[in-house]
Amino acid sequence: MKLSFHYEPGNGFVSEDKGKDTLIMKDPLLENTTRISPTELLVYAMGGCSSADVVLILSRMRKNIKSYRVELDAERESEDPKTLKSVNIHYIMEGDFTKENALRAVSLSLEKYCSVSILAKRGGAHLTYSITLNGESIAKNMEA
Amino acid sequence: MKLSFHYEPGNGFVSEDKGKDTLIMKDPLLENTTRISPTELLVYAMGGCSSADVVLILSRMRKNIKSYRVELDAERESEDPKTLKSVNIHYIMEGDFTKENALRAVSLSLEKYCSVSILAKRGGAHLTYSITLNGESIAKNMEA
Repeated sequence: MKLSFHYEPGNGFVSEDKGKDTLIMKDPLLENTTRISPTELLVYAMGGCSSADVVLILSRMRKNIKSYRVELDAERESEDPKTLKSVNIHYIMEGDFTKENALRAVSLSLEKYCSVSILAKRGGAHLTYSITLNGESIAKNMEA
Repeated sequence: MKLSFHYEPGNGFVSEDKGKDTLIMKDPLLENTTRISPTELLVYAMGGCSSADVVLILSRMRKNIKSYRVELDAERESEDPKTLKSVNIHYIMEGDFTKENALRAVSLSLEKYCSVSILAKRGGAHLTYSITLNGESIAKNMEA
């Protein structure tokens, strides 16, 4: 995988992958910016990677997902390099499937398939998950 | 840090951080999409996190950066969960500073400050760097 970006002072680090959306990461010399920081990107990538698995697994089970949201709650270490200390991924789903289907999809993702979250976990981040299915909490801060 | 996103089938996973740019990660059920994947985001985050350090460190040294680009070359493991196997960060800079300044900024970042790259390295990714300063290669595939 080859990717590149360049620095535009006052704007940020701008991706150069022509066929893809442009990503702009924040300029470290700016205090107020709407740009996303690299650490936020990592946390989004953990949730996005796992969500790709969950959506794929449920779709292969021929389950109908009515709505799907994720809330991420992350904490960094207080000492440099301030790596991720903990991340909770809260899957909030509505659809025509059972608790067992939801739990199976999330477990398969976090234990077997989600490369970004598994790398972060191996790197020392404490990874947990919560699941709310059709308004009911079926898992809360479980160890991944 | 609290972040969230929701799934829009046919579009992707759409971030909900109101004060920030919208990030859309690819829909796993689509083959052709301009959206960025979570693994690509992780690789961008590694380069972006380190670049934030390098720009900050050089600016604190009161050095003038004329241009700054990064090329990332990443490889994934072939077996699930296909975590990052290796990442080379190639810093391509032009400016009024010495090789020693550039090497110092990059080393400080990759050894001490860049939380995303250091987490990935702890998680098993083989991290290397190359530096081209004012058209001259001053480091090539060095261990980070």
